[in-house]
Amino acid sequence: MVKDLIRNGLDAVEEKLHRVVKTDVDVLDEASHHIIGSGGKRFRPRLLFLSYLAAGGDDLDEVVPMAAAVELVHTATLVHDDINDHSLTRRGKITVHARWGRTFALLTGDYLFTKVYEMMAPYGARMNTIMAEATVLLVEGETLQAVAAKSGQIDRETYKKIISRKTASLFRAAAEMGSLVAGADEAVAGHLSEYAHNLGLAFQIVDDVLDIVGDPETMGKPVGADLPQGMGAVALHNGRKVHSGIAEVEADPLQELMGRLRESGAVEVARAEAEEMAQRARKALYRVPPSPARDEMDRLIDQVVRREH
Amino acid sequence: MVKDLIRNGLDAVEEKLHRVVKTDVDVLDEASHHIIGSGGKRFRPRLLFLSYLAAGGDDLDEVVPMAAAVELVHTATLVHDDINDHSLTRRGKITVHARWGRTFALLTGDYLFTKVYEMMAPYGARMNTIMAEATVLLVEGETLQAVAAKSGQIDRETYKKIISRKTASLFRAAAEMGSLVAGADEAVAGHLSEYAHNLGLAFQIVDDVLDIVGDPETMGKPVGADLPQGMGAVALHNGRKVHSGIAEVEADPLQELMGRLRESGAVEVARAEAEEMAQRARKALYRVPPSPARDEMDRLIDQVVRREH
Repeated sequence: MVKDLIRNGLDAVEEKLHRVVKTDVDVLDEASHHIIGSGGKRFRPRLLFLSYLAAGGDDLDEVVPMAAAVELVHTATLVHDDINDHSLTRRGKITVHARWGRTFALLTGDYLFTKVYEMMAPYGARMNTIMAEATVLLVEGETLQAVAAKSGQIDRETYKKIISRKTASLFRAAAEMGSLVAGADEAVAGHLSEYAHNLGLAFQIVDDVLDIVGDPETMGKPVGADLPQGMGAVALHNGRKVHSGIAEVEADPLQELMGRLRESGAVEVARAEAEEMAQRARKALYRVPPSPARDEMDRLIDQVVRREH
Repeated sequence: MVKDLIRNGLDAVEEKLHRVVKTDVDVLDEASHHIIGSGGKRFRPRLLFLSYLAAGGDDLDEVVPMAAAVELVHTATLVHDDINDHSLTRRGKITVHARWGRTFALLTGDYLFTKVYEMMAPYGARMNTIMAEATVLLVEGETLQAVAAKSGQIDRETYKKIISRKTASLFRAAAEMGSLVAGADEAVAGHLSEYAHNLGLAFQIVDDVLDIVGDPETMGKPVGADLPQGMGAVALHNGRKVHSGIAEVEADPLQELMGRLRESGAVEVARAEAEEMAQRARKALYRVPPSPARDEMDRLIDQVVRREH
């Protein structure tokens, strides 16, 4: 029942996303449909819907544009990330950057951000403030990551700050907004936000681990594509500064580094860390009144921690 | 009296801008303060304040964050423009792109956009919808311009579409929002919006003319830095497709093209076109009840059309 609702909601999100980006400016139209059509787990809209239902909401339609907006923030970020990382593929498809060039990729990302804003506008001051604060944190997190990538160094504290801002902030906002639209009291909204924040941390740690050990076929991108995160996982392991060492290694430094990461025990430590975040998420979730949506959110935790791509 | 109010309002905007971009992420903090501190005419906040006053508003403080947001949309666009144009200077100072590199310039532009959103959030659904629609148009206009620049071709119709979206849309939104916050009825808000739209068109045409004939010292950037717009001035002149001809000219193609533009009579035609837009702006303005703010808006038209930088 909850699963059916979510499936219908996600279908509506897809339709909304494709409808909202339509424009007579051909390159924006094509590039936007391309990136939206490239798939993705739609994790953030799913989370928003579940929080809405867990908080007692009974008409998903009222949060479809909001769920689409949350997904679109994430999507816009990916388009800009791919410029900065010179990535050629994403989710197994060519990136906007690789197909339309840097200038149009930059403008497509900007365009998607403006559409986020357009979809959110009707929700009023409080929701827009939550969303704005989350996007500020997200861009700050991306920037801290770029600083780490440039310096080739990262420590545990910085890694945690990065994943908290670039990933957990939007997870949290999705849950908070979904629950508040449903009319949740502040306590329930707080627990769901806490759940989502920790789920986001676990999600990102697992993502970074998969970047080191994942199967490129399943992942849809090359192993090591998100190197700074891989380094972050190592930082979790030894708690001090990690240097990428690229400057020191002459032949195929990425393979060399990846091998070193896999052998270091960092992966196991990072997985344990993700498991701890999952426990925190579960603890917060159990403070919310029981419901089929809450059960589904419980299962979501396991999916996040055990996923292979 | 109006001038004093505006001056105080603009001072408050500067302060707000510097305060709102503060962050513990050093590179974003430094780059944001750098671009905000690089000056600019602050034309859009000025326009918003005047519309607010002309519509009967009596406490500029209530629109200071909104005026800062409008200026910040413009500023964020400049940061991203400079990446795409490989510009090294802007308003006589080094660009974010040149000083911090492409990655951080991209992220700084994104960051400023998120701060726009943060400042606008408290104003509620209608204002946020107006602002969102204007920023959508702005990015569309920027994209159409990039398409024209890439193809080296532009016609009169495309040029008008570009300047309407990339410049006039934000002028219009500034005036509309300012007047609505002041409690203007729909008719007055409509006239002020119409005024601002035409003022924006005139403003951009004059900007493009100055890019061809302006003094680089006064302009703070090299002549021809915004080449596609210069081509636009020519398109206004002959009403058909203009080819930049860069491929045809071997030695110093930009100087060659600029010379050709200056000799073509295009500048005079463009100035006449700007004058026509100014007349339309004035006509709309005179439908608004007389006030000292309206008088100031009238003088603003002359300043736009006659400015030398």
